[in-house]
Amino acid sequence: MIYFDNSATTKPYKEVIDTYTKVSEVYFGNPSSLHTLGKEAEVLLDQARDQIAKLLKVNKKEVVFTSGGTEGNNLAIKGTALEHQGRGKHLITTNVEHASNHEAFGQLETLGFEVTYLNVNEYGEINISELREALRDDTILVSMIHVNNELGSIQPIKEAGELLKGYPKVYFHVDHVQGMAKVPLSFKDCHIDLCTISGHKFHGPKGTGVLYVRQGVKLFSLFTGGVQEHNLRAGTENIPGYVALAKALRLSMEKYVSRKTHLQQLRDLLITELEKVDGVILNSPIHGAPHIVNYSMPGIKPEVVIQALSKKEIYVSTKSACSSKLAEPSRILMVSGLGEQRAESAIRVSFSFDNTFEEVNEFVRELDNIYSQLKEVMR
Amino acid sequence: MIYFDNSATTKPYKEVIDTYTKVSEVYFGNPSSLHTLGKEAEVLLDQARDQIAKLLKVNKKEVVFTSGGTEGNNLAIKGTALEHQGRGKHLITTNVEHASNHEAFGQLETLGFEVTYLNVNEYGEINISELREALRDDTILVSMIHVNNELGSIQPIKEAGELLKGYPKVYFHVDHVQGMAKVPLSFKDCHIDLCTISGHKFHGPKGTGVLYVRQGVKLFSLFTGGVQEHNLRAGTENIPGYVALAKALRLSMEKYVSRKTHLQQLRDLLITELEKVDGVILNSPIHGAPHIVNYSMPGIKPEVVIQALSKKEIYVSTKSACSSKLAEPSRILMVSGLGEQRAESAIRVSFSFDNTFEEVNEFVRELDNIYSQLKEVMR
Repeated sequence: MIYFDNSATTKPYKEVIDTYTKVSEVYFGNPSSLHTLGKEAEVLLDQARDQIAKLLKVNKKEVVFTSGGTEGNNLAIKGTALEHQGRGKHLITTNVEHASNHEAFGQLETLGFEVTYLNVNEYGEINISELREALRDDTILVSMIHVNNELGSIQPIKEAGELLKGYPKVYFHVDHVQGMAKVPLSFKDCHIDLCTISGHKFHGPKGTGVLYVRQGVKLFSLFTGGVQEHNLRAGTENIPGYVALAKALRLSMEKYVSRKTHLQQLRDLLITELEKVDGVILNSPIHGAPHIVNYSMPGIKPEVVIQALSKKEIYVSTKSACSSKLAEPSRILMVSGLGEQRAESAIRVSFSFDNTFEEVNEFVRELDNIYSQLKEVMR
Repeated sequence: MIYFDNSATTKPYKEVIDTYTKVSEVYFGNPSSLHTLGKEAEVLLDQARDQIAKLLKVNKKEVVFTSGGTEGNNLAIKGTALEHQGRGKHLITTNVEHASNHEAFGQLETLGFEVTYLNVNEYGEINISELREALRDDTILVSMIHVNNELGSIQPIKEAGELLKGYPKVYFHVDHVQGMAKVPLSFKDCHIDLCTISGHKFHGPKGTGVLYVRQGVKLFSLFTGGVQEHNLRAGTENIPGYVALAKALRLSMEKYVSRKTHLQQLRDLLITELEKVDGVILNSPIHGAPHIVNYSMPGIKPEVVIQALSKKEIYVSTKSACSSKLAEPSRILMVSGLGEQRAESAIRVSFSFDNTFEEVNEFVRELDNIYSQLKEVMR
């Protein structure tokens, strides 16, 4: 099996599953309970929070556990908008966001909020001067994705943060789901107020995530009913999931240190080999994230290619998993101005640190065969 | 160890953890992905949904997976209120709800909704005629707990459903978190539109739950961003968690059939024995749920008793786990008119099907010793 769909989800590390299992079996208490079993669970939860805080270089009071990236983005965006609407109802985002961000803004528009969607260039990147011009007296939130999930484009988060430093009443939310442990981001240096990460994107358990909430930021809770997660997210904590998430984050960040060059080399090799295939057009910016390669073969339906590769136990994707079943050209590629032909024939290859050069070579060989056969049929 | 805190959380069944582990290892694909790994995950998810639907005797399109009871209650209540506010802004609930329900209503009041809180009698039960009188032309939701998490009181859900059948524009939500697999409830016969259950309350994984949403009921999604869960709850599905949840529900419902008499006998034994202890006052209604016994020992701080029992590896609780660290008398016991003395000295014992008569006897013996020592000290 060659698994090149790591932006959709990753295989949990064995150590992560072992941790989940052990905590479930032994430390099953409710951390809100007053007895020893509850306290043991509470200590574990606190250790997991502390470990994550250290890895992210933030305070542990700023780590809010969630059920994943979609919850994180929804809590950050709706939580800010509903809590601070008294100060203004203008929001700014980009038009290349993941659906969980994009649709949260759409929903807020139905509640009377006004949203500015920043445009992007052919690399899927915004222009800081456009952000500057969009800011108004009634703007309360700027929200953007760090590493785009389809193209791998990297937004200028540091520059945006520098700009927003001058607007202390505007909250800055970053969707770091695709970037975590692949493209470094300093929450503090970039003046980020809210930042979303998701466990299953870095070999952690599904159904777990973290929303970084800078101390002092108030949110309208989506889940009320208990004082858990610093009063921002009620509900009995998924302790085995969160402890396993902390382990996954540590292991992934260690891998980043030891294997980031390898990841970049995998990508360079794939791009070099793809450029030799007749008809292939690269969509990802060459200076994009090291784990995502998006390309098109205009005229060939990507679903057919994915099925053919799947038969060889090679797994890649079309667009974002969350919208892969919608029979429309990629929204992200369209707004990046790559045109309908490319937007409806795009394929995304996404690596983990454990993929190999041999896998890349085998993938390109199989791809070459498949394209030759498809072109033969269509001739 | 004697674990009598099953209303706070339960120990996951071994089979449940095994299922979680296996699915995590082998079927880690994203069910939204188009390739074989994604399809395998999708099939598993569909089977889990189907199994749960059959166990609950509902349609599988009515099963919405969530991260747990707090999410279920919040989605049902806020989702209904925000979606249907054009038709009216009056909501009805009771004053003995779990915090996740109670505080959701409090939050909606800050958004301009009007809430009627039904009173309860000394058994913690509402009066149907009071519900009838509370209904207005602008009422859009009635929400109540089935089995109270502190007292074990059972609300007259069937009678409420019969009444609400005559008000087709009023949605009926039931919090069945404590009742599931312990006190039967037919969602269909009771004309329920929305019903919350939580995995970790019946030996399933933490961070998993189901919200039953009757076909045709529209909700304002708390999480937008993908078509998952019939477009009601976006986000990559926690497949291992949901498959394990389905297994826990099946096993628990099987245990209910084979061991419901045992559960009732455990409770009868405990009540009989407690009544022999000098100073004990039973708070739970005698006709309450078979797994919860709430009693008070006025004048003795329950935290002290819990710590003393905890040293003997016996685990019980004060009030709801979600509010057990708040140094206030139990809100539920107070509004049931049991008085401050009882409300601040209450202890909850909650059983699983696997508890034994020997455990009950040992618990009462230890309790007797502890009370004797405490009374000695206070003399």
